[in-house]
Amino acid sequence: MADEPKHIVSSFESDLKKLHDMIAMMGGLVERAVADGSSALLDHDPDLAARVIEHDPKINAEQHNVELFAVRLLALRQPVADDLRQVIQALKVVTDLERIGDLAANIAKRSIVINQVASSFSLSSLGQMATLVQQNLKSCIDSVGEANPQKAVAVWRADQAVDDLYNAIFRELITYMMEDARNITACTHLLFIAKNLERIGDHTTNIAELTYYAVTGESLPDFRPKGDNTAAYMPSNAG
Amino acid sequence: MADEPKHIVSSFESDLKKLHDMIAMMGGLVERAVADGSSALLDHDPDLAARVIEHDPKINAEQHNVELFAVRLLALRQPVADDLRQVIQALKVVTDLERIGDLAANIAKRSIVINQVASSFSLSSLGQMATLVQQNLKSCIDSVGEANPQKAVAVWRADQAVDDLYNAIFRELITYMMEDARNITACTHLLFIAKNLERIGDHTTNIAELTYYAVTGESLPDFRPKGDNTAAYMPSNAG
Repeated sequence: MADEPKHIVSSFESDLKKLHDMIAMMGGLVERAVADGSSALLDHDPDLAARVIEHDPKINAEQHNVELFAVRLLALRQPVADDLRQVIQALKVVTDLERIGDLAANIAKRSIVINQVASSFSLSSLGQMATLVQQNLKSCIDSVGEANPQKAVAVWRADQAVDDLYNAIFRELITYMMEDARNITACTHLLFIAKNLERIGDHTTNIAELTYYAVTGESLPDFRPKGDNTAAYMPSNAG
Repeated sequence: MADEPKHIVSSFESDLKKLHDMIAMMGGLVERAVADGSSALLDHDPDLAARVIEHDPKINAEQHNVELFAVRLLALRQPVADDLRQVIQALKVVTDLERIGDLAANIAKRSIVINQVASSFSLSSLGQMATLVQQNLKSCIDSVGEANPQKAVAVWRADQAVDDLYNAIFRELITYMMEDARNITACTHLLFIAKNLERIGDHTTNIAELTYYAVTGESLPDFRPKGDNTAAYMPSNAG
């Protein structure tokens, strides 16, 4: 680096800054989608749900813009070492952000159906889960913008609480279905919504891992204290 | 390209060949995971399920190897234009392959529970879906190895049949749950298995799109005749 003319280094830095700004912008759209998708469900607001679905292509378009910019940056600046790593990580972060946007749109779609079906049970645990997922996502996107590895580690750890809530909600929903067959349709959609929130949590920890690696050059351990235990769930009263 | 010394071009080509071979190898592991995960469910084979789960870290390790190789290739060869595009696409393909591996392991996990719960209904549509998903995945991985855009387009189109089957299975499973509450646990896991197969189909079409773009430099249209319509599903007898 010391051998390179100063203006080339500065140009790369300003390009990298632009890349991070683009990701922060896309992150803002994704945060909004998750917040609005959750509100559409919890506040029974089908109009808001429709807007989340309608706005999803904007998020996909942002991903495409970031990718074009990153690939041009690779071609023109031909970065190596740390700089190369940061560009590659940026490409991966936007893949996770785009998937989070898809999951938020799917929550919005399902909320429309759930609001049409009478349900006699509380959505409070799901509301708690949605709040936690949003808090983590916000901290995570901040950690990208601030290149803050400590914040990334905190996000990575905080996902455990999301997984715990998911496991509890899964059990709760199965119980409601067993109690009354009229709950089955709503609960099936709620199961997928809870799973979507859990997956948003996983993509958020992915981004946290990518950020930690981009900033420090070191990987977080493969083993994260996690996860979704429901794949092995069998209630004692199963037939 | 014409101005570059011949040996540099050849080196890049042999690196690219190695990259494609590594992806084909990883693709083989992923194909096997999906085939074995499905067999574990359909043939009631918990030992096979355990092996799929046990082998998943190998797939993740392969992804890591491909990424290391690709990033080194970017740093050392500093490819531009078509060459750069091919390396970036390779990085994205392995992300999709790794997720397919995760989904196969999740199918295996759930199959263990389902096999412990008596079920009075047929898994034949799910078997059909699993077969179709495997055929598409195989053609797709072949299309990557052969750099064959026609094959990629065929895969991309064939996913419609997977989605149609998923939609039918979703409705079928809801019916079984409504008929008998003792079916709820097994059907919930089967719903997630069907969803996993549908997602494997989506990752497969992603890979097909990436391959088409890598080979031709052109994108397939944004609109694919698809999809999962179940997010808006509400049976007429819902309470």
